[in-house]
Amino acid sequence: MAKIGIVGLGLIGASMGLALKKAKFAEVQIIGYDRDPEVGQRAVKFGAVDREAFSVEDLADESALVIVATPIITVEKTFAAMAPKLHAGTVVTDTASTKANVLRWASELLPRDVYFVGGHPMAGKEQTGPQAAEATLFEGRPYCIVPAVDAHPGAVSAVMGLAEAVGAAPFFIDAQEHDAYAAAISHVPLVASVALFALARNSSAWPELAAMAGTGFRDLTRLASGSPEMAHDIFSTNRDNMRHWMDRYITELLRLRDLIEGDDSQAMFRAIAEVQIQREEYLEKPPQRPLAGADMPEVPSTQSAFFSLMAGSLWTERARELTESVENRSKERQQRERLRRRE
Amino acid sequence: MAKIGIVGLGLIGASMGLALKKAKFAEVQIIGYDRDPEVGQRAVKFGAVDREAFSVEDLADESALVIVATPIITVEKTFAAMAPKLHAGTVVTDTASTKANVLRWASELLPRDVYFVGGHPMAGKEQTGPQAAEATLFEGRPYCIVPAVDAHPGAVSAVMGLAEAVGAAPFFIDAQEHDAYAAAISHVPLVASVALFALARNSSAWPELAAMAGTGFRDLTRLASGSPEMAHDIFSTNRDNMRHWMDRYITELLRLRDLIEGDDSQAMFRAIAEVQIQREEYLEKPPQRPLAGADMPEVPSTQSAFFSLMAGSLWTERARELTESVENRSKERQQRERLRRRE
Repeated sequence: MAKIGIVGLGLIGASMGLALKKAKFAEVQIIGYDRDPEVGQRAVKFGAVDREAFSVEDLADESALVIVATPIITVEKTFAAMAPKLHAGTVVTDTASTKANVLRWASELLPRDVYFVGGHPMAGKEQTGPQAAEATLFEGRPYCIVPAVDAHPGAVSAVMGLAEAVGAAPFFIDAQEHDAYAAAISHVPLVASVALFALARNSSAWPELAAMAGTGFRDLTRLASGSPEMAHDIFSTNRDNMRHWMDRYITELLRLRDLIEGDDSQAMFRAIAEVQIQREEYLEKPPQRPLAGADMPEVPSTQSAFFSLMAGSLWTERARELTESVENRSKERQQRERLRRRE
Repeated sequence: MAKIGIVGLGLIGASMGLALKKAKFAEVQIIGYDRDPEVGQRAVKFGAVDREAFSVEDLADESALVIVATPIITVEKTFAAMAPKLHAGTVVTDTASTKANVLRWASELLPRDVYFVGGHPMAGKEQTGPQAAEATLFEGRPYCIVPAVDAHPGAVSAVMGLAEAVGAAPFFIDAQEHDAYAAAISHVPLVASVALFALARNSSAWPELAAMAGTGFRDLTRLASGSPEMAHDIFSTNRDNMRHWMDRYITELLRLRDLIEGDDSQAMFRAIAEVQIQREEYLEKPPQRPLAGADMPEVPSTQSAFFSLMAGSLWTERARELTESVENRSKERQQRERLRRRE
């Protein structure tokens, strides 16, 4: 019977197990290993894996496909421990949130005849551990497939098949691009969320602030409740990209702060309205991703022009409303007076 | 029959109407006015008001309690239009997101014998207009009650009763404090959300970023889909507080950026872990707000010490895990070999 081995049975590893079992492959056994025996037993109890392996080496020895779902920083040691036991032709993948380091470790530590293809399912939640796992965690979510330049085509297909089996939408991306884009779309939002909570929490007015907090504050600080271990590993393996995108984020905030402070009310309105229009468009009709390997296109100038136009006409309408409402009201009053006189 | 008049029948005004009707006061009629006749008709159709008033002046003339739920910038003109028609003893309140300007306008424009008490229900959503209104929008939400220093006690009770009638939890706050705290807990998160979306959307890699976006990005940019008119009005009536809190937010981001960039992995981990522990505590046991008028207490040093301690011991655990896992694995391997030899 073919065996799929999952190393690390936390939220992601256990959810992979549940999703694979839901896919009901005949003749496939799912074995798991976690360095914490309690976590391993819980994963068996929740049905995330069929059984536990005695050790990570045994798991490597038995499996035709290995999914490494440990914390990022532990991936290196896991590769080193598995290496002597992996058989030729075994496919190894991972689920880590940063990819450049993982690909480097794979190329340094795994045997030549073992096929590694990086993976990153874009799914998660604040709760951790196998008890938080869900068979549907990856459904409809993007799943980054990150092959090394010399990756074996059959192994790439296998990992793509794995992504599809758990209900995700696989797409190819280069490791350097992945880490840069993940910083922008996922890791900077995490820092933004942590900073928003710290801002309020560290204020001496915190009891008042907490009393006034609405759903917006709660939603925007949600990511600050995620695992600090995971955040630590992400940041320490993606420093250059974090610096770049954090600086861009701060520049964007300074631009908005200056617009809010400034005297050009129209420019401030247009900047906010443009973003609002663009986000609605994104929700209704997400942009088509260019083919993998194609050069990144600049944002089409016709589109920018369109958004600017839309925001501008919204402002015109608003300015008219603001200035005309007094006139209208007085006209309306006059008209009403006329109507009354006629009655 | 006593009449409650609602000026402005958008999301908040219409939700107030629905919530008041749900409260089923005997002998109370709810009348409404919106400068957009279509919005007014829709509010009647959805049952948010019993009928439309012919004009804002008529509404002022008829009502014992007036709720002004127009955009902030329109509140001034609405007060001016209502002033000549309001009867002595009428209670006027509003629902605007900033309060210092509104209280100033009330004191300048409303007659002395009309009782104004500011209000701000901390509830909302991205959708606008009476079609998005909900009778339960305010249920369990904080509702700021902002009386002027010379406010009439009976009027204050009436507005407090209104907040309770719509299911909200009223609490008193001074206008200056309200605007400062709302900037920190509500308006800076809005800018943070707009900036996060703009950061990704303005990148030439936007199609890739959009393809990789998970639920975190969607949740954190949700506020960017709110009404740009409302955002404009909030920012332009709360500039000083926005500057102050935006600068503090940027300082917080720079602190985190430096920790991420720096060499002290433990300090970075502790900073994130401390926020995570504090947020869990906030969700489980929100801080008790001090009595209104009491001096704001500094965050108790015993608490800070507690969080620091917790984050520190988490790190010790993590550091041990990271360094010991290799040793453990080799010990485990030796033990296994011994077991095998015995078999």
